[in-house]
Amino acid sequence: MNVSPNSAPNPAYDRLVARFARIATIGEAGAMLGWDAAAMMPPGGGTARGDQLAVLAGLSHGLLLEPAVADDIAEAGSRPEPDPWRAANLELIRHAHVRATALPADLVEAQARANASCEQVWRQARKDSDFDAVRPLLAEVMHLVRQSASALSPALGLAPYDALMDGYQRGITAADVDPVFADYEVFLRGALTKALELQESRPAPVRPQGPFPEAAQEALCRRMSALVGLDFDYARLDRSTHPFCGGTPTDVRITTRYDTADFAQSLLGVLHETGHAMYERGLPEAFRRQPVGGAAGMAAHESQSLIVEMQTCRSDAFLGFLGTELHATFGGDPAPYRPENLARLWRKIGRGFIRVDADEMTYPAHVILRFRLEQALVAGDLVVADLPTAWNDGLHALLGITPPDDTRGCLQDIHWYDGAFGYFPSYTLGAMAAAQLMAAARRGLPGLDGELAKGNLAPLMTWLRDKVHSAGSLMGFNDLMRAATGETLNPAHFTAHLTERYLT
Amino acid sequence: MNVSPNSAPNPAYDRLVARFARIATIGEAGAMLGWDAAAMMPPGGGTARGDQLAVLAGLSHGLLLEPAVADDIAEAGSRPEPDPWRAANLELIRHAHVRATALPADLVEAQARANASCEQVWRQARKDSDFDAVRPLLAEVMHLVRQSASALSPALGLAPYDALMDGYQRGITAADVDPVFADYEVFLRGALTKALELQESRPAPVRPQGPFPEAAQEALCRRMSALVGLDFDYARLDRSTHPFCGGTPTDVRITTRYDTADFAQSLLGVLHETGHAMYERGLPEAFRRQPVGGAAGMAAHESQSLIVEMQTCRSDAFLGFLGTELHATFGGDPAPYRPENLARLWRKIGRGFIRVDADEMTYPAHVILRFRLEQALVAGDLVVADLPTAWNDGLHALLGITPPDDTRGCLQDIHWYDGAFGYFPSYTLGAMAAAQLMAAARRGLPGLDGELAKGNLAPLMTWLRDKVHSAGSLMGFNDLMRAATGETLNPAHFTAHLTERYLT
Repeated sequence: MNVSPNSAPNPAYDRLVARFARIATIGEAGAMLGWDAAAMMPPGGGTARGDQLAVLAGLSHGLLLEPAVADDIAEAGSRPEPDPWRAANLELIRHAHVRATALPADLVEAQARANASCEQVWRQARKDSDFDAVRPLLAEVMHLVRQSASALSPALGLAPYDALMDGYQRGITAADVDPVFADYEVFLRGALTKALELQESRPAPVRPQGPFPEAAQEALCRRMSALVGLDFDYARLDRSTHPFCGGTPTDVRITTRYDTADFAQSLLGVLHETGHAMYERGLPEAFRRQPVGGAAGMAAHESQSLIVEMQTCRSDAFLGFLGTELHATFGGDPAPYRPENLARLWRKIGRGFIRVDADEMTYPAHVILRFRLEQALVAGDLVVADLPTAWNDGLHALLGITPPDDTRGCLQDIHWYDGAFGYFPSYTLGAMAAAQLMAAARRGLPGLDGELAKGNLAPLMTWLRDKVHSAGSLMGFNDLMRAATGETLNPAHFTAHLTERYLT
Repeated sequence: MNVSPNSAPNPAYDRLVARFARIATIGEAGAMLGWDAAAMMPPGGGTARGDQLAVLAGLSHGLLLEPAVADDIAEAGSRPEPDPWRAANLELIRHAHVRATALPADLVEAQARANASCEQVWRQARKDSDFDAVRPLLAEVMHLVRQSASALSPALGLAPYDALMDGYQRGITAADVDPVFADYEVFLRGALTKALELQESRPAPVRPQGPFPEAAQEALCRRMSALVGLDFDYARLDRSTHPFCGGTPTDVRITTRYDTADFAQSLLGVLHETGHAMYERGLPEAFRRQPVGGAAGMAAHESQSLIVEMQTCRSDAFLGFLGTELHATFGGDPAPYRPENLARLWRKIGRGFIRVDADEMTYPAHVILRFRLEQALVAGDLVVADLPTAWNDGLHALLGITPPDDTRGCLQDIHWYDGAFGYFPSYTLGAMAAAQLMAAARRGLPGLDGELAKGNLAPLMTWLRDKVHSAGSLMGFNDLMRAATGETLNPAHFTAHLTERYLT
């Protein structure tokens, strides 16, 4: 593996490859146990599972921090490396090592403890809409996040908040995101009102009448996931409270939940997770378990779920095919399954409080709000006690609505309460990248929509495997976008997509 | 944990406790991944799973072999330890360390490779009844097993075969087993013929008429497992090709398979695995993840599955309760569900070729055959090439029948082809221990059969938890039996049970 005919022997590099393969294999074990905890584990297993994951994390961290690693990185880097994959892999190994060594062990432990305590209290606080109950724990989480950002900042040569973002999507900074989000805010102000007017002027969508038995929904989800291209010899579909895509590239585990009154939640959710799964399945096999063989970041990952769910499966072309499938599956009145009705139903827009329920036009507003607030929190310009007010004011400025309580406000997302700062922008960068990739795919594959109308996703998925999946982490986000589409991230494709879908 | 008021501080012992907890936690992760591989994993995940398990095994082995361990064992043992649990734990830690250090790393690796290759070829060879196809691989496995036995023998102060047995059931040697099995052979010669005559003289059993839907079988299995006492907040029931009990004490995973024509396979199988599961659930919590907190060995484990399945659930008393439950579940003609019919159906005896299909009277003959052959193989008195003939002659001597092919002969069990020598006696020692424990429970709980007839297993399971489960590995097998029943293993209880059940 990883031996290019251009490369001279480099034993230090080979040692690093072996070590990182071992670290990644421990990570795979952890990923499977994480899936099990969410999808299978009886409640009594929780405590022991926490211990198991902590021991695996400690072993993995120990392997990364052994003194030999720094020596091997220096030695491996002292030789010329003409092969771009090996060169990128070494650079990512160095990057991972810098991140790991920048953080003192006691800070890492304190964060693990503080995040776990805060998250636990948050679950109840969210139910009770009681921000005060979790406020001191979030303050402690913030305190440690700021310490962590300060420690990472000089090591990575990035501003503190950028050093946090780097942990989720390498190669993107707040300076890249700020103008993109500012422009989107301007676009949204005009577009949302117009789109809502247009929506009002059209017939209201008709809901398909259930109940839709879970077994039928599950079979449908599995069939549609396979239609996208997921091979269930290398994947499973199960149930969990919060749907996700986990596992490993040869054993992907996607989950969903079923509502017998509405099959859309499971179906569209599974299509979303299938996009993630296809990315994992398509990663370069020759660099499996190496940093360069992994996904290019969370924004890149989200672009793959959204190009399947939003760009493809909610497109006019595909809805024609899907409506026929749905009526064949569930029977009854055909009217709700007509593509124009499905479009009105599944592309309904509106001002809402909850990010995960938001349509694709208003979703970025939720992300922009969080992006700005978390920057202020990390910078120390906003204190935790002022968060609920800042949240409500911010949402009002963006969408003109004010949450009636903190459950529907600053308590709704797990991220911050679990110590995750710098993640939110990935959602919207992913949505923008998905639109840009879809535009490029349409240029590269002229008959694409005709194929989607026949339920044939193979040309698109082959294109994505070629342009995105198989590139692994060889390039940063913008270089990946340039290689795939001819330009770095250009939000105009996303606003053009929204304009076409919601304003015409 | 583990701090007794009688014990002086012993930092070396505390370090060992922490290390063995870590090793056990890695083992838990491996156990969950093993369950997943059998019950959940798509076929494509197999290769990566093998890597994951190998890396975990290597990490665990590395922790056990670090030089500090020998020093800590010596230092910990130099202090007086009045607490019997801590003393036994240190002794078991020493024992585990002796076993691990006795085997050279290259031998361990060679065995892992040879066992995996042999097992893979065996799967096809068994289908084809082609012993020659697997013969050279089994010869290599044997060669390494003999090396391993020779290395363990002086380290443990045990004969080579006894050193292998020690890996499955500590404290039992071939010298203990030989006379027990010789006596049983004599008993069987007379008993089997008489029992078969008696069986012939009685009405043939009537089979309940299916089909029995899988969902109904699964619900029944779950209900009966809960009736025995398994708490599904700490356990799961799933499907696998080969039923087993895996997982960890707070997250037990039992599996079964369903045959819609016959619910007995899944029901009795689940009751068997529930016996194993109850043992794991009842292990002493204060010594969780310590050697002394684990089960007392494979014979002890099998005694717990068999006391539930064979001694309790196939007893006249319980069959009365169960028959009513079954008829309520499946409906139809009540005749097949009458206890006397269930007894004739599920306690049918006969001479057969296959160990796993054998009744409880002839099962020991299958074990005796394997016990004698594997001793001869390990001693070098029998060469692999002569195994099929030796097998067929041996079975004929014991049961008077000759397998028509090696599929139904020496190719039927996975054990040897996977390198497991010294395991087989545990099955029959467990059956004998189960009968002895049941006799003691009947003495200690005078109204026991009346309770079983009402479907109340709580008194028996409480007794077992008190006498067996909660003792963990504090005692060796015979000391455990003496503490629980007043005498060391006494096979007379098993023959008395068989006499009562099959000869009266």
